[in-house]
Amino acid sequence: MGRVTVRRRVAHIDERGTRTRPDTLAVEEPLEIRLSGTSLSVTMRTPGDDFDLVTGFLHGEGVVRAADDIRAMRYCADTDTMNVIDVALAEGVAPPEVSPDRSFLMTSACGVCGKTSIDAIRQRTRYDVRADPARFDPALLARLPETLRAAQRVFDRTGGLHAAGLFDAEGTLLALREDVGRHNAVDKVVGWALKDKRVPLTGHVLLVSGRASFELTQKALLAGIPVLAAVSAPSSLAADLADEAGMTLVGFLRGPSMNIYSGAERLPGPA
Amino acid sequence: MGRVTVRRRVAHIDERGTRTRPDTLAVEEPLEIRLSGTSLSVTMRTPGDDFDLVTGFLHGEGVVRAADDIRAMRYCADTDTMNVIDVALAEGVAPPEVSPDRSFLMTSACGVCGKTSIDAIRQRTRYDVRADPARFDPALLARLPETLRAAQRVFDRTGGLHAAGLFDAEGTLLALREDVGRHNAVDKVVGWALKDKRVPLTGHVLLVSGRASFELTQKALLAGIPVLAAVSAPSSLAADLADEAGMTLVGFLRGPSMNIYSGAERLPGPA
Repeated sequence: MGRVTVRRRVAHIDERGTRTRPDTLAVEEPLEIRLSGTSLSVTMRTPGDDFDLVTGFLHGEGVVRAADDIRAMRYCADTDTMNVIDVALAEGVAPPEVSPDRSFLMTSACGVCGKTSIDAIRQRTRYDVRADPARFDPALLARLPETLRAAQRVFDRTGGLHAAGLFDAEGTLLALREDVGRHNAVDKVVGWALKDKRVPLTGHVLLVSGRASFELTQKALLAGIPVLAAVSAPSSLAADLADEAGMTLVGFLRGPSMNIYSGAERLPGPA
Repeated sequence: MGRVTVRRRVAHIDERGTRTRPDTLAVEEPLEIRLSGTSLSVTMRTPGDDFDLVTGFLHGEGVVRAADDIRAMRYCADTDTMNVIDVALAEGVAPPEVSPDRSFLMTSACGVCGKTSIDAIRQRTRYDVRADPARFDPALLARLPETLRAAQRVFDRTGGLHAAGLFDAEGTLLALREDVGRHNAVDKVVGWALKDKRVPLTGHVLLVSGRASFELTQKALLAGIPVLAAVSAPSSLAADLADEAGMTLVGFLRGPSMNIYSGAERLPGPA
């Protein structure tokens, strides 16, 4: 496994002048994902949990639905890095169609207006999160950012990583992943859950350390997660998608203060 | 032009209970970029300055070197949204090669290990930022985040946008762009500079509101910008690329306190 952080000498300037000191940086390296030897995508990621990342990525793109849909994964031996993974899909699992004039990555957006995108996502969704009966005490949600933050070991050293944390209905942190790319952090969490046969993640909460974009909302929805909470702001399209899917979207979750953009019925407040 | 923000009713919860109130969200919508009718890429962006975004994106991908390399751009009439732009390249400008097994977007990473990536970028770079003689007083740099923040009108309302600001050697803010995608914010700034025939941006500083990734560093380098400053952390590969290219990379720029990861000679501190 590659390194997650590197040490580097930096010049620090403040009121007291300039001095050189060591600093810890989050590692960013490309990961190329191949399907049976054919290059499918390259993502810039922090090394670690790469197989989970690949599983979660392929799940978010609609290629695999369960860990069993992947027959084998291995680091390619034809490079001297750990930055190429080749995936063999299980029998009967169709690889994505990759045509010359439409890159695979475009399926993340699935259309060219918000409405089209949302419709496409809804068609791909196997799980009806709207039917998830889970209810959460806002006081439980209020504690999650602190739990996540306390568990973020790499961030403490680098300040440079996004985090995604999966919590159960009691507010217990089940999985935390950190990455320079926020989509990767979520892919790693979902990939772990797939490997552990926990999908659909009924009754769970996914907490992300930054903003909630359309793509993060989409990834959570495809994994059957009824509540997505973000420490920072959601985008318009994230709120639209959550609303249409019956997912609870919480933003600006900062201690006891939070905004609920959709699905407020899952967070019955004090009367 | 599309909307940059939308209003939405949200439930706000805090110690005093739950109340419903209007909130302002940053708009996120897909933008499909086509070259002579052929789909090239889809990016999730905040509407506005779309032509600059497309110009900057194509510049970062090495397709165009100047605004004149684009003969025409227009919103496609075959959709009812403003989310598809078709680009006609000028005569003699080669479109990127898009092969079925390697998506266009992969060129952003250009390889599968950090070293390969950096070598590829260096080969594509037209401007030698190492030779840029610009020097900056750290006290000038220290003022830039506050200037950027004061000019960020949309962020003030939504808390949901990344910002990129281009400053001249005197610390004057020349261009500020905000977007849900940080790459888009930089593409919009570079696209504006290309349109205004300011590239290479010798002696300029690019300030980004978040972290400095490899891709942002690459975009700045390709535009000939000698100093990239980030309010938050850089990644390892960003620092490596800046170092090899002779670019000054500043991180954690917070008032008078900052870290210099490469090119410290451009920021002679107080003796």
